[in-house]
Amino acid sequence: MKVDGKNIRPIWLDSDLNVVKIIDQRLLPHEFVIADLKTVDDVIMSIKEMYVRGAPLIGVTAAFGVYLATLNSPVKTIEDDYLIEECQRLKASRPTAVNLAWAVDKVLSETLKADNGSGKIDTARNEAEKIAEDEAEKCRKIGEHGLDLIDEISRKKQGATVNLLTHCNAGWLACIEYGTATAPIYAAFDKGLDIHVWVDETRPLNQGARLTAWELGKHGVKHTVITDNAGGHLMQHHMVDMVIVGTDRTTFTGDVANKIGTYLKALAARDNNIPFYVALPSSTFDWKLKDGIKEIPIEERDPDEIRHVQGLDRGSIRSVLISPEESPAANFAFDVTPARLVTGFITERGICKASEKDILSLFPEKKKP
Amino acid sequence: MKVDGKNIRPIWLDSDLNVVKIIDQRLLPHEFVIADLKTVDDVIMSIKEMYVRGAPLIGVTAAFGVYLATLNSPVKTIEDDYLIEECQRLKASRPTAVNLAWAVDKVLSETLKADNGSGKIDTARNEAEKIAEDEAEKCRKIGEHGLDLIDEISRKKQGATVNLLTHCNAGWLACIEYGTATAPIYAAFDKGLDIHVWVDETRPLNQGARLTAWELGKHGVKHTVITDNAGGHLMQHHMVDMVIVGTDRTTFTGDVANKIGTYLKALAARDNNIPFYVALPSSTFDWKLKDGIKEIPIEERDPDEIRHVQGLDRGSIRSVLISPEESPAANFAFDVTPARLVTGFITERGICKASEKDILSLFPEKKKP
Repeated sequence: MKVDGKNIRPIWLDSDLNVVKIIDQRLLPHEFVIADLKTVDDVIMSIKEMYVRGAPLIGVTAAFGVYLATLNSPVKTIEDDYLIEECQRLKASRPTAVNLAWAVDKVLSETLKADNGSGKIDTARNEAEKIAEDEAEKCRKIGEHGLDLIDEISRKKQGATVNLLTHCNAGWLACIEYGTATAPIYAAFDKGLDIHVWVDETRPLNQGARLTAWELGKHGVKHTVITDNAGGHLMQHHMVDMVIVGTDRTTFTGDVANKIGTYLKALAARDNNIPFYVALPSSTFDWKLKDGIKEIPIEERDPDEIRHVQGLDRGSIRSVLISPEESPAANFAFDVTPARLVTGFITERGICKASEKDILSLFPEKKKP
Repeated sequence: MKVDGKNIRPIWLDSDLNVVKIIDQRLLPHEFVIADLKTVDDVIMSIKEMYVRGAPLIGVTAAFGVYLATLNSPVKTIEDDYLIEECQRLKASRPTAVNLAWAVDKVLSETLKADNGSGKIDTARNEAEKIAEDEAEKCRKIGEHGLDLIDEISRKKQGATVNLLTHCNAGWLACIEYGTATAPIYAAFDKGLDIHVWVDETRPLNQGARLTAWELGKHGVKHTVITDNAGGHLMQHHMVDMVIVGTDRTTFTGDVANKIGTYLKALAARDNNIPFYVALPSSTFDWKLKDGIKEIPIEERDPDEIRHVQGLDRGSIRSVLISPEESPAANFAFDVTPARLVTGFITERGICKASEKDILSLFPEKKKP
């Protein structure tokens, strides 16, 4: 996507093929810094510390992590045990996003099969790059399918502004291109539809206020930042036509793990008869888990992410303490929206309802024999 | 209430009777500063800029504003027109809290009836002080009645920790003593029940993280600060036994205006079968409005309250910009929770259901003939 006229992705392999380059998303929108990843440890750190975030991007970054593992083998012959162990470490870096394990396992299985030495190295690189391209293409298709939904609302409103609401960042920064939740938004904008996006700031790390607002602004999409508290009021007053969010893991039964607070927006959408859509590539479906609330592991992060807020003060990025020094805080990073509150899924294969039957009819190859 | 061993209220009249003293709540929990109010303009500024906030405290502060108007009459004979006009200005300082108009009108009507000169001055002072005492006493009674609810949960849980969740600050800082939502909490704590409070940080101004956490901490009540996004997840996982909030204006039909985001918590409580109570003195009921969502005016405040967050950085209070400089923001300060989502009201006269019939059976004198 374009930033100040230049095409950029949130991750790419440097031309010397030794370094993975990423945008350090912790510093956006105030500073635009590119970071270098050279080792598996670098990759794990970048995922844990959220230099990169968003389920598809975490997956692609970890996939390149497997490639870096092959490059950095301590002995000339790349041993299977070494690779498997490095992949275990990569997969343990964050618990909730399912794309992480999916991407690592995909690169690993092909790499294990390849000839040793440059065979394994080339295979790992090709597989990681293929995953990146596949994710970008899936997002493009999600945009195509989701556009139909926005187009329909626009026609019903006779061209009046379509108001969308999104939570967190499921934009191109979270993916490779287009984003998931934002893909239909960018497609609608590019088609010339009159749209406006309410951007939940998304505490604690403000990915909405920092990243989604930045992305939309750079692309020229009208948007307004709101607190996470405001969506219900807007929906009660007919100021939201549709909610679109991404997801970190969705069960094959339709339960959606996404950034904490998504569930509250889904409840408000249901209470006000507003369509609530989840946009995701098939890599984000968990084909094993049935009950999202009981089974999806919810990451608990450092309480200091709650107690402090980061932003710009007189030209430099600072962090301020908002609560009393003595007060403890708890930081659950995701929640699960039950399938009954989801109007539908927007996938690369099309749109389906949030039920096992409908999901599997779109992905019949996932049906258990 | 006690702060570091000293009894204090959020507002009092100085011993020389010329200055109203308030805690500047914008600076808590990091600085404890007392501000002087000497004129009606000071009072309006203190309400608009949120040195004071919370429906009962706004009412009491404005009541003392009427007293300051009598003291500062430009001519020796205090003219009715002058007083009425100053009261209009006071009532216009914030639109949502109904206690403001109620308290100003109460002091005004008695003052208009009194003899001129010191008669009016003494009457205005006595009326304002009476309102302050009445509000404190109402809160004490709210605590008594609400205690029964917590006690019942505690017994059902055989003494295991009762987990309460509250939004914003409806504590003694928002009232005179005890608070509204916190009165039952303090009563339960003082009785020795094992309780723990989840404190919504309450963006944009973080009254939960700044004020409720500070109050509870000073009193020794176990609490944990969470983002406004987290409550739904906690309720899904049986980590909340009861929600208690305050209100800025409640219709006689039971619709509750309170800090933005309250509606989302009420939806989550309903979805998880958790009791959702609203604690309020009778001064917060609006006996004229029937449809809260359509009729209660919702204040829209400065978008910069969204874009910036204030806190402590290296010993001083600073404000950091979180969103892109170019991104607009919208700042709706309250939302309305429809009566159907409210389990009940805790008032100074007892507990009632959220319906016109039940509210009026507790306050029969308000029935229209």
